[in-house]
Amino acid sequence: MLLERELIQSTGFRNVSDGGEVTGFQLRLRMPSYRGMAASLIDGVSVRVGDLVDVPADVPVWTFAGRTYTLQELWDSEGVRWPLEEAAIVTVPLPGGLPEGTHEVSIELRLRMSYIPLEHQPSTYRVSRHITLTSAEDGGPFKYGVSLYSFMTDYGTVLDLETALAAVADVGATGVEILGEGHIERYPDPTTEWIDRWFALLEKYSLEPTNYGSWIDTRLHSSGAHARDLTAEEGAGMLQRDLRLAKRLGFRFVRPKIGVVSSDLVPHPIWTESVERSLDLAAELDVIICPEIHSPTPIKHEVVDDYIDLIERTGTKHFGLLLDTGIFQDRPIALKPGELPGQRPAFMDGIAVDPADIADIAKYVVFIQAKFHDIDENLEDQQIPWEPVLAALKKAGYTGYLSSEYEGEREPWRSIEQIRRQHSLMRRVASRLP
Amino acid sequence: MLLERELIQSTGFRNVSDGGEVTGFQLRLRMPSYRGMAASLIDGVSVRVGDLVDVPADVPVWTFAGRTYTLQELWDSEGVRWPLEEAAIVTVPLPGGLPEGTHEVSIELRLRMSYIPLEHQPSTYRVSRHITLTSAEDGGPFKYGVSLYSFMTDYGTVLDLETALAAVADVGATGVEILGEGHIERYPDPTTEWIDRWFALLEKYSLEPTNYGSWIDTRLHSSGAHARDLTAEEGAGMLQRDLRLAKRLGFRFVRPKIGVVSSDLVPHPIWTESVERSLDLAAELDVIICPEIHSPTPIKHEVVDDYIDLIERTGTKHFGLLLDTGIFQDRPIALKPGELPGQRPAFMDGIAVDPADIADIAKYVVFIQAKFHDIDENLEDQQIPWEPVLAALKKAGYTGYLSSEYEGEREPWRSIEQIRRQHSLMRRVASRLP
Repeated sequence: MLLERELIQSTGFRNVSDGGEVTGFQLRLRMPSYRGMAASLIDGVSVRVGDLVDVPADVPVWTFAGRTYTLQELWDSEGVRWPLEEAAIVTVPLPGGLPEGTHEVSIELRLRMSYIPLEHQPSTYRVSRHITLTSAEDGGPFKYGVSLYSFMTDYGTVLDLETALAAVADVGATGVEILGEGHIERYPDPTTEWIDRWFALLEKYSLEPTNYGSWIDTRLHSSGAHARDLTAEEGAGMLQRDLRLAKRLGFRFVRPKIGVVSSDLVPHPIWTESVERSLDLAAELDVIICPEIHSPTPIKHEVVDDYIDLIERTGTKHFGLLLDTGIFQDRPIALKPGELPGQRPAFMDGIAVDPADIADIAKYVVFIQAKFHDIDENLEDQQIPWEPVLAALKKAGYTGYLSSEYEGEREPWRSIEQIRRQHSLMRRVASRLP
Repeated sequence: MLLERELIQSTGFRNVSDGGEVTGFQLRLRMPSYRGMAASLIDGVSVRVGDLVDVPADVPVWTFAGRTYTLQELWDSEGVRWPLEEAAIVTVPLPGGLPEGTHEVSIELRLRMSYIPLEHQPSTYRVSRHITLTSAEDGGPFKYGVSLYSFMTDYGTVLDLETALAAVADVGATGVEILGEGHIERYPDPTTEWIDRWFALLEKYSLEPTNYGSWIDTRLHSSGAHARDLTAEEGAGMLQRDLRLAKRLGFRFVRPKIGVVSSDLVPHPIWTESVERSLDLAAELDVIICPEIHSPTPIKHEVVDDYIDLIERTGTKHFGLLLDTGIFQDRPIALKPGELPGQRPAFMDGIAVDPADIADIAKYVVFIQAKFHDIDENLEDQQIPWEPVLAALKKAGYTGYLSSEYEGEREPWRSIEQIRRQHSLMRRVASRLP
C-alpha cells in the first residue's frame, strides 16, 4: 500500500455514522515526519472545513490499528503507534456530518520531536487541500465502477494494485475495470500467486470485475523487412486469448480495441471475422465482447451500424456496444501551455454527440465508460454534460455500470481526487433525475 | 517494484562490458503508453548524450526478460512484450563507454498504436533528462552505503522497499542503513514474513545491513494531565528493544537519537544511564551503539567529550561515534521561495567544522552518515566540501561506510538521482586522494 503525497489524503474522506445517525466525518493523514512514532508524541490536530467546521487541536479523535483514542488517551498510551506506512484516521464530531461534495479542508498538526530544541517545538504542519467526500447518494438506476485506466501514469509509479483498488472502493464503487495488458502482472501468463492475490483483493475491497480492455493489434508486424498485415486468424487468436484470461479473472465484458484504417476510426476489415470466429467461445465463457464507440466516432456512423449489423445477423447475445462518454464532450479540453488549437486534432474540442441519439442504440449498449477530463471544486465538469447524458441513459433503460475513465492532466495523484469528484457528481445528478 | 515518473529512469544508467572491454552503455525506459504492448510495436529509439553520442532509432538494442534483440528482431518477434510494470533496457554501442558523471540524455522513442489513425503515427515521445552513470571508480579506502532516510517522503509514496533497495544497489553501494521505526513494517513487531522478505531482498541486491536508526524519545509523555519525563529505565528499554531488533535484521550499528535539553543539542541527562544499562546487551549482540555528532553540535563540544568519557570510563568496545557530514557544511542551504535568512535557525547556513578536527576523535568514529543537500549536474556539491572531508577521514584511517543521507528538496523521485550524483562525486574524490 502506498499513500498520497499530500498529508491530507483524498481516500478516506467520509461521513461516519453511529446507530443510524451521522455523527461526524473522517479524514486520513500521512505521517509528515521521516519516521513513524509513538502516538503519545502527537500534540493534536485542529481541523477547519470551509466555513462549516473549525475545531481546536484537542477535539478530533484518532484511530490507529482499529482502536480510537482521545488526545489525552494518546498521551497516556503505551505502544500505540502512528506508523510511517499507515495513515492516521482523524474523526471530527459533527452532528449530521458534512454536506456532499468537495470541501477545502485545512489542518494544523502538532508533533513532539524529542531531538529538536524546545524553542522549535512542537513541530507544526499546516496544510490545506480540496478533497471530496465519499458520496452517500444512491445514484440509481446505475451501478458505479472505476477503470484502472483512470490511473494512467500513476499506476506503477505512485499506485500499486492494492492502493488503486482501495481508492476505487473508497468512492463507493462496486465494480473495477482493468486493461489486460497493463494491470495483469506478466500478461498474458500471470502467476497463480498473482491470480490468488487478485481475488483476495476483490474480496477485501468488495469489488466485482466488470470490463476487461484488450487490443487487436492490427499493426503488430507492420514495420521492417517482413512487414505484413495481421490476419483474421491472428486477430481472433488475440481476442480469444483475452476472453479466456478475462473469464479466469472474473470479468463479464471484454472490450477489444481494434486497429483502425481511417481518420474516423473505421476498424480494420479483419475485425468482423476475428469477432465471428470468437462468438462461440464468448458464449461458452458467457463473456460479452463489446467494442467501444469512442470520439471522434459518433453514434450515427457506419462503424456502429456495422457492429449492430453483426449482432442482428448472427443473433449473438455475446456481442454488444460499449459507449464512451467522451463522445458527448461539448466544450474543449484546456490547451496545454504554449499549445495552439490548430496543433491538435479537432475532436479535442469535443464532437458533442446529442445524448438523445442514445435511444437509437440503447438496446445494444452493455457497458459505459464514463470518460471525463476535469471536474472543478464546485463539482462542475468542464467538458462532459452529465445531466443530459445520464438522463438519456436512464430514459433508455440503462441500469449497468458507469465506469470512470479519467483522462485529464497527469500530475501525480490527481486522478484519485478527480474520480472522487466524478462519482459525487454522477451520483448527485442521477439521484435528481425525474 | 515501482518506476520513476520520467520515461528515462535514473536507476540503471551504466556502462556495459563484454569480455573485459567496455562496449557501450545502458539506460532504462518506462513504457510511455497506458498499456504494455508487444515489442514488435516498437519503431525504435534514437539516443543522444550531450555531444558524445547521437545514434538513430535502429541502432540501440532492446532487452526484455533478460533477452536482447535488435529492432528488426523485435519486428519479427512473437510474444516478446514491453510490460507496463517493467522498464525496457536500451543498450547503445559505444566503445569505451561514457565518461563518469552526469549526462544529459535525450531520446526519441517511437511506438505504433494500431488504434490511432496513420496520420498521427508512430506515437513519438521526445524527452531529455540529466542522469548519472553508475560509477566504476574504486572509491577506496571507504565503503559505500545509502540510508533509506535519503528517500524521506518518497518512501511509501513513490518507493516501496524493493524499489528503494534496487536504487541503492544500482549506485554500486554495498550497505544499506534504515530507520527502525520507519522502514520496518509493523515496528517494533515485524511479521516473520516481513523479516524473510528483508533477507531475501538483501541477498537479491547484494546488500549488507549497516546502521539502524533508533530514538530515545525523552518527551514520550511530556504532554497532558499526566505529563512526566522519561526515566533512564524506560530509555534503556527503548534502546534495548532496538538493539535486539537491529541484530535480528543483521545490523552492526545502532544510532540512538537521544532527546535534547538545549539549543546546541545537549542530550537529556538520562542518556548516560540508558546507554550504560545497555552495554552488556550490546556486547552480547555484538552491536555498536553510536550516537551522532550532528549539526549544530561541532566536534569540539562537551557532548562529544561526554560520549568519549563514557567510552574511556567503561572501556566498552560497543559504544562509538557516528559523524554526520552536515557539520562540515560551509555554504548555506538555498532559501525556499519567500524565505528570509533570519527566519530559520542559523545552522542552516552551515557550521563549517574544520575537517582537521576529525583527527582528534577519529579513533572513536565507527560510522559516517554522508549528509548532503544538493549536487548539481557538474557533480558540484553546493554545501559540503567533500575533498577536505574525505581527505581528513582517509588521513585519520577511517575505512568504514560513507552512508548517504540526502536531505535536500523533496520533489518526488529527486532523491534517487541526487544519491547517484553523490556516490559518483564521493568515489571520484576518494579515488584521487593522495
